[in-house]
Amino acid sequence: MYYLGVDLGGMSIKAGVVNDKGEILYSDKVPTGRERHYTHIFKDMADLCNKVVSGAGLDISCIESIGIGSPGIPDKKAGILISSNNLGFTNVPVRDEMQKYFNLPIYLENDANAAALAESVAGASRDVEHSVLITLGTGIGGGIIIGNKIFSGFNGAGSELGHTCIVHNGLKCSCGRRGCFEKYASASALIYQTKKAAARHPESLINTMTGGNPDKIDARTAFDAQKAGDAAGDAVVRKYIEYLADGVMNIINTLFPEVIVIGGGVGNEGENLFVPLRKELKKRLYTEDVEETKIRGAEMGNKAGIVGAAMLGRNI
Amino acid sequence: MYYLGVDLGGMSIKAGVVNDKGEILYSDKVPTGRERHYTHIFKDMADLCNKVVSGAGLDISCIESIGIGSPGIPDKKAGILISSNNLGFTNVPVRDEMQKYFNLPIYLENDANAAALAESVAGASRDVEHSVLITLGTGIGGGIIIGNKIFSGFNGAGSELGHTCIVHNGLKCSCGRRGCFEKYASASALIYQTKKAAARHPESLINTMTGGNPDKIDARTAFDAQKAGDAAGDAVVRKYIEYLADGVMNIINTLFPEVIVIGGGVGNEGENLFVPLRKELKKRLYTEDVEETKIRGAEMGNKAGIVGAAMLGRNI
Repeated sequence: MYYLGVDLGGMSIKAGVVNDKGEILYSDKVPTGRERHYTHIFKDMADLCNKVVSGAGLDISCIESIGIGSPGIPDKKAGILISSNNLGFTNVPVRDEMQKYFNLPIYLENDANAAALAESVAGASRDVEHSVLITLGTGIGGGIIIGNKIFSGFNGAGSELGHTCIVHNGLKCSCGRRGCFEKYASASALIYQTKKAAARHPESLINTMTGGNPDKIDARTAFDAQKAGDAAGDAVVRKYIEYLADGVMNIINTLFPEVIVIGGGVGNEGENLFVPLRKELKKRLYTEDVEETKIRGAEMGNKAGIVGAAMLGRNI
Repeated sequence: MYYLGVDLGGMSIKAGVVNDKGEILYSDKVPTGRERHYTHIFKDMADLCNKVVSGAGLDISCIESIGIGSPGIPDKKAGILISSNNLGFTNVPVRDEMQKYFNLPIYLENDANAAALAESVAGASRDVEHSVLITLGTGIGGGIIIGNKIFSGFNGAGSELGHTCIVHNGLKCSCGRRGCFEKYASASALIYQTKKAAARHPESLINTMTGGNPDKIDARTAFDAQKAGDAAGDAVVRKYIEYLADGVMNIINTLFPEVIVIGGGVGNEGENLFVPLRKELKKRLYTEDVEETKIRGAEMGNKAGIVGAAMLGRNI
C-alpha cells in the first residue's frame, strides 16, 4: 500500500510517495508561487504528485489516498483550508481542487499535526500510542497523538500548544493573549532573551562570539556561550529552560502522553537541552508514584511534512 | 442493562444501581471508617452493593459490572489504588478485594475522572463527544472525555488540570510547583483573595456581610458583595475570573473540547460566573475562524460519583 503526502508551504510544495511504514520511496518539490490564484497552485501540485508516482516506478492506481499538510486552520470534514496567513488563503476548497485531478480520498491537515503523526508512525514516538510533538521555532507549534491518531479537538482547530499561558499578564503575544508559552520558549523568544543579556553584559562571550552585532545572535548563541563557560549565556539558558519546563509540564499534567517529542531549531540542541529540561521537569512532578513521560528529540526532520501528510490516509 | 457505581470517599461510601442512560434506580451510603484496615472497608462496600441491588428490586445477576471511583491515583489495569491521601491508602488491591464478593468485572477510576464521565453520559456534556470537566473546589480537579471515554494518559494518572502553571514563579502549590492554576482559581484561592481584599479595604461590604470576621468569608462572599455594588468585591471577582480564564483557555488551546463543564463550589455561581468568564475567554481566542468551545455548569451534583463510576463498565 502506498500513500501520497504533500507538504504545502509558503515557499515550496513538496510531495512524496510513502509506504505503510512511513518510508519515502521518492519525493520532489516545486516552488509554491503563492502570489498566484490557488487553482494554479493546485494544478502544479497535481503535476508534482503524478511526477513522484512515476519517479517511484508506480502507477496512480497503486496509491490509496493523498494527504496534504499545510500551515493554517483546516476544515477537515469539508476539505477546505479556512485560513492560512502563510499562504494567503481564505476558504480554499483543497479537496475539490485535487479531485479535479485524482479520483482518490483527499485528506487535509495542519502541518504541525501532520509532523506529530510522522514522528508517531516512523519517528521518535513510533513505539507508543499517545504522544505530543512540540517544535521550538519561530513560534511553538505542535500536535497531539492519541491512540496513534491526530487529536485536534471537536472543530479540528487544535492544538495550539504555543498559546497556553504560563505567565499571567506577561508579554503580549501575536495571538492577542498575554504570557503565551511561545513568547518565552520559542527559538524567537530565546534569541530575544539572548539579545537582552548581551546588552546587559558587554563582557559576555555572547558579544565576543557575534562580534558585538546583535543581529548575529541566533538560537544557538546562548547554548554555545554556556558551553564556553560564559556566565551570561549560562543564565539565559537556565532561565529559558525554566520557561520551557513550565509549558512542557502543563502538557504532561493535562494529557500524560508517554512521549513528548521536541523538534524545531532549539530542539536541535538535543541532550544539551533535554538533560537540564528533565531535571526541571522532575521538580514540577505532581507525583512520583507513576511512570514518567519521556522527553525525546524529533527524528523526522524535513521528511515530517511529507510522511505525516501521507499517513493521514493510513491513520485516519 | 444495569451497572453498580460506588463513590468511595474519605467520609462515606455511596453506592447505586444505574441504568444505561446514567439514571440512578436506587442508592444508599455507609460511613467509610477509613481508620480501619481496607479489608473491612471493602466488606462494608460489598454489603452496601448487595443492599442497593435488592433495593432496586433486582438480582445481582442483572448487574454488568461494578465501577469504583475514589480520590487518588489508580493503576486501572491492575485494579490497584496506588495512593490516596484522602483514604490513607497505598497500593490497595481494590479489584481483588471486590472479587472476593462478586464474580463481575471491577473497574477503578479517579473520582474526578468519573465525575467527568457522569456529565458526559447524563449531564451537561451529554450531547457531545469531547468534553472536559473542571471542579472549582478546595483544589481544581477535573477529567477529560475524548470520544465519550475518559482519557487519562498512558499511565492512567491524568488529568491534573489544577496543576498547570499559569503564573511563572508564582505562589507555591501543595504539589511543589509554583503558580499552579488551582492556587489562583480554586474556591480556596478565591477565599484567600477575598480575605486579602477585606483586610485592605475595611470599608468594604465584604466586612459588613461577615461581621468583620474573616473566618466567615467563603467562596460566595466576593460574588455577593459584587452584586450589592461593593467595589472591593467587584475587583476580587474580576481578577479571579481573569485567572480562571487563563487556565480554561489553556485547556481550550490544548484540547479544543466542544464543552467545558464547570462544577464545584464556585461553579454554583452559574451564569454570574459564566457570563464574564465567556467575555474573558473571547479576549484570549486564538482565532475567530472556528466554532468556539461552550462553557456550561455541571448538572450531576452529588450523583456524579455514583453515575460516573457505574458508567465505567459501559464506556470502557
